[in-house]
This record gives sequence, structure tokens and C-alpha cells, in this order.
Amino acid sequence: MAALTGREWRLLRRPVGVPVPGDFDLATVEVPVPDPGQLLVRNVFVSVDPYMRGRMSDVPSYIAPYGLGEPMTGGAIGEVVASTVDGFDPGDLVLHMLGWREYAVLDAGQGVVLRPQEGVPASVYLGVLGMTGLTAYAGLLRTAAFQPGDRVFVSGAAGAVGSTVGQIARIRGASLVVGSAGSPEKVRLLREEFGFDAAFDYKKAPVAEQLAVAAPDGVDVYFDNVGGDHLQAALGALRLRGRIAVCGMISRYNDTSPAPGPDNLSRLIQTRGRIEGFLVGDHLDLRPEFLAEMGPRVASGELRYRETFTDGIASALDAFLGLLRGDNIGKMIVRL
Amino acid sequence: MAALTGREWRLLRRPVGVPVPGDFDLATVEVPVPDPGQLLVRNVFVSVDPYMRGRMSDVPSYIAPYGLGEPMTGGAIGEVVASTVDGFDPGDLVLHMLGWREYAVLDAGQGVVLRPQEGVPASVYLGVLGMTGLTAYAGLLRTAAFQPGDRVFVSGAAGAVGSTVGQIARIRGASLVVGSAGSPEKVRLLREEFGFDAAFDYKKAPVAEQLAVAAPDGVDVYFDNVGGDHLQAALGALRLRGRIAVCGMISRYNDTSPAPGPDNLSRLIQTRGRIEGFLVGDHLDLRPEFLAEMGPRVASGELRYRETFTDGIASALDAFLGLLRGDNIGKMIVRL
Repeated sequence: MAALTGREWRLLRRPVGVPVPGDFDLATVEVPVPDPGQLLVRNVFVSVDPYMRGRMSDVPSYIAPYGLGEPMTGGAIGEVVASTVDGFDPGDLVLHMLGWREYAVLDAGQGVVLRPQEGVPASVYLGVLGMTGLTAYAGLLRTAAFQPGDRVFVSGAAGAVGSTVGQIARIRGASLVVGSAGSPEKVRLLREEFGFDAAFDYKKAPVAEQLAVAAPDGVDVYFDNVGGDHLQAALGALRLRGRIAVCGMISRYNDTSPAPGPDNLSRLIQTRGRIEGFLVGDHLDLRPEFLAEMGPRVASGELRYRETFTDGIASALDAFLGLLRGDNIGKMIVRL
Repeated sequence: MAALTGREWRLLRRPVGVPVPGDFDLATVEVPVPDPGQLLVRNVFVSVDPYMRGRMSDVPSYIAPYGLGEPMTGGAIGEVVASTVDGFDPGDLVLHMLGWREYAVLDAGQGVVLRPQEGVPASVYLGVLGMTGLTAYAGLLRTAAFQPGDRVFVSGAAGAVGSTVGQIARIRGASLVVGSAGSPEKVRLLREEFGFDAAFDYKKAPVAEQLAVAAPDGVDVYFDNVGGDHLQAALGALRLRGRIAVCGMISRYNDTSPAPGPDNLSRLIQTRGRIEGFLVGDHLDLRPEFLAEMGPRVASGELRYRETFTDGIASALDAFLGLLRGDNIGKMIVRL
């Protein structure tokens, strides 16, 4: 039998600033035969996420950098091709972390069988019902300690996390949900599809000015996906005992030198406010309640989501680079 | 009977940058005769505090700005001269907020009789056993959620709040207490008198470099009195789930234009860290437990304090300006 081959994306060198194609290599490799206790999956959906930019750099962080010359990793859904593990049968879908490749050999503990809820496509478990949705849920409800009646501002609001944050805030009784995004089309979607009360295009005018119009009485919660001007504007608009949950700072990820931070941190004293960073990995205990609350809302269409697909493993790098540019609406997913 | 006169400091115009004497006026006024329900006190100790700089500017804040042409206010201890109020007798000491003047007429609800603990001078109730000490206690234990074993860094550590923070941390079981101050004399005091494990002069070398030497494994808690470089250095040194309590940012108080903030706020994501501002006025419920725990330690000499006195109401402005320059060691008090 001819050996099975598959392609995988490897990091060749650490990007400086915006990653370029020469930083990566799409290698064709022989797929190993699974040992006893392992299973072979063919990936059908591969996730690309902003946090991966951090892993391409060799700086101390919460997660090890990608190794040079090694295949990159990330969330994925594979279909079992061959298995020697009880409970994983050919045809089963498996959620796992060996993305960025066509085929993966998993130890039994590296994957969980995915049985999508009726009416919910499998890809959604990489997005609004996956780590992405849990990120929104944990960051808003636990880190930002959202309370009904809060005025909420979300940046990167047309992205997979941001659009979910805004909707959870609305469902849980926010008195105002404001989102920012980077195009008129995204702004329209925020208002018309995701139910934001107000939305603005941060490229059109200073964030602080637009936020002052959208939230004239300030904000109790700011969910930060962006950093930079957005964080400064949110600090300026922060209400008494306001809370800022820092999920990401995508505006900074490709910086080659540090950019100055907000000049108005003393607002934290005036407001007795708080800025707190979080990682979804610290909040996996919320997953059961998250799925119990949000699963039915996704199935019923109350909690909406968008997916931006690219096709074929060769498109994964473009998908990732597009994500950093903000080309996506909702979750960016590579479909194999 | 000739009318009683007294002097009081008034704000004439809002300082731009560093306050100058021409911004203020020491006026001689006729002291009103107390109405029924009021008492007349002669101030014996008047507090000057960094937060007063903020009240001299007309910017939205947690506390109303001083009115132009009006006497300024602040913590003080007065001795009752005349009283029509039960429970306030001539000779009693009274803690109140009508400082910056020689005589004050108080409504009964504006003051509380002060009965110093044996062996504790009255002035201490403006400092380590007053709002100053409570600021240290609340900020460290509640806002920064100090836990035994924490590595603690305090800026402005030779000041009234900072020196108390360091000692409370040590008493409560910190594994490391590091302080920064602005002169070799202060640094020596931190080590030899206030029991800090390590201390450095922030004027001698970059804060980040000196902090890395003093706390090579990073810090769990940073108590910020200073802002600026200190905050940036603390973020750089923050350990997993580190907490920064922002009490003040004295390095910024005289800025005429905003200075850029720390460029490393994304450390909050990596560390799941927190920056939170606080005001002692929100934590007055801690006062009984604070006094019960710290009063005996002050009386026994376990909890040390320093006071820097100036004499006479005319010296109050110099005392305040000196405080902003860092001339003081411990609590700056005007003795009348």
C-alpha cells in the first residue's frame, strides 16, 4: 500500500512585523501509521485565530512559541480515518489541537468526539460554541463581571469573539451594547444582524469621539480585543467601578517596537476601575454552563454567528493573514 | 470682645503644572461665632496630601475641585475652643476635614472626638493610624488582594502610605518586600527602619533594571503611588495573576499634557493580571479592623512611622509643595 501523504504548515522563521509568506512553508509529509492507542484523522475544519501571531514570536508568554521547522498547531475538527481507540470510530468527528495540516495522528487524550447538536453545523464548535464563544462568555461574565443594566463596549465587534460578546451582553440584559469594527459593511452587520444598539467604523473618526456619541453616559464594561486607541477611549469613557477585560490587543500584534500605552490610566483611580487580562484556558470550568445556555440559543437562531471560510489547506496562511488584516466577518475557518 | 481672627489658605487660580505661591493666598478672616449645634476648634495639626493637587485643577474627578477664592479643605486635628454640642468639650481633640486654616467652625456631624491610644501622639491619627494608614491597609489587603507569600513592590515607599504598605506586607507574611524612593537617605530608611527586604533609588538607574535585581522572580503585588516608569516596570515584572493597586500617580500630577502610558499592558493577558484603582473613601468599613490590628502595633513600635513637621499655618503651602517634590519622609504635617 502506498504511504499516505498530507500537507502541513510549518514556521520557517519568526516574522518581524506583519508575517509574510516566506516565513512559512507548506510541506508534504508522509502520514505516520497510528500506533495502538492512537487514531488517524483527516482534518475537515481548521481554525485560525489571532493569538497564533504571538506563538510565531519567541517571547515569553503563556504558551510556548511554535518551533521553527515544525508544523504549527491550533484548533481543528477531524474525521476519524483509522482508530485503535475505543470510542473513536471511523467517520466520527473529533475536536483537537493539531490544526494547520491535512492529516493528524492523535493520542487518545488529545481529542474528544464531537457530536454536534441538531441543527448546528460542526464548524460552529470551532467558533461560537467552541473556544471562541467560551472566550466571549468567560471574559464578559467572569473577568468583566457583567451585571444586567451595564453599558457594554466591544472592539473587534464583527469578529468571532466580539460578535458573541455583544449578543451575550444583550441576552443577559445590558442597557447598551456598542461595537466598533473596521468597515461600513461590518458596522451594518453589528446593528442589523448581531443586535448591537450602536456601532461605528473606527477607521472613519477617532474612537473616543465616536464612542462619546454612541455611549454618551459612558461604559461600565469594555471588552478589549484591540488595545491602542480603543483602550484609551474606553478608559476615558469608563463609569464608576467600570471593568475592562483584556482579551487581545490585535492592533499591537505586528508591532516591531512597543507603542505607548494609554495616557489616561489615572482614570482608574477616579472611577475605581479595573483592567484585567484573561485567557480562556483558565475558564474551562465554565464550559458546561456555557454550552447549556448558549447551545440552544445557537440552534434556535437567537444567538447568531457568521463564518468566513477559505478552502483547502493551501489557503490557511492567507486565511490567517486576512484575519490579522480584519478581512473576516465572524469566525475565520479553513475548510478542507 | 474683639472678634477672633485666623488665617486660612485659599486657592486663587488653578495651577498649571507645578503650583506656585501666586496660585494661593493666605487670608486673615474673622472667625464666626459658632451657632447652636456647632463647635469652634483651633487646629493643632493640618494634613497635606498628594491628592490635594488634583483638587486644585478643575477636571472631572471623584471629588469636587477646590473653589477659587475659597479656603481649601483637608484632614486636620483641632482642639475645641467653644462648643454648644454634647460630647464635644473645650480641650477635646477633634478629627475633621476643615484643614488649611487656623480656626474652624464645625457642625457636629463634621468632626469626631479623637482619644489617642496610650503612647500614641495625636498627629499619628492623620498618618499611620488615620486615612493614610487605612489607604495602605485597604489598597494592599482588599484592592491588591494580598496573600501571605506574595512578593510585593511599593513605589513612593518612604512616604506615609508607602512605608505603611511595606510594613503591613511584612507583618502579613510577604515573601519579599521591595520599595523605591527618591534619595539614598530614604532608601537607607526603608531597609533599616521600615524593614524592607530591598530598596532602591529610582533616580539612580532605570526602575525596570533595579526592580529586576531587587525582585529577580518578579512581583505578585505592586502598590502604585507613582505611575509612569514605575508602573511600566511593575507590569514587566508581574507574575502570574499579579495585582496592581493604583493609589496615586504622583509622577503625573503636575503634567500639563498627558504623558504616554506603559507600552506593555499586554502583559496583563500573559499574566492574567489586574490593575485596579481605589480610593480610601470606599473602604471606611475596614476602619475598625484596621485600628484593632494596627493600633497596638503602632503603640508597641512594631509598626513604625515617620513624620515630617513644618510649623505654623504660613508653612502649609511650602509643606504641600515639598510633598510634591518628595521632601518628606513619612507623613507631612503642619503643626500649629
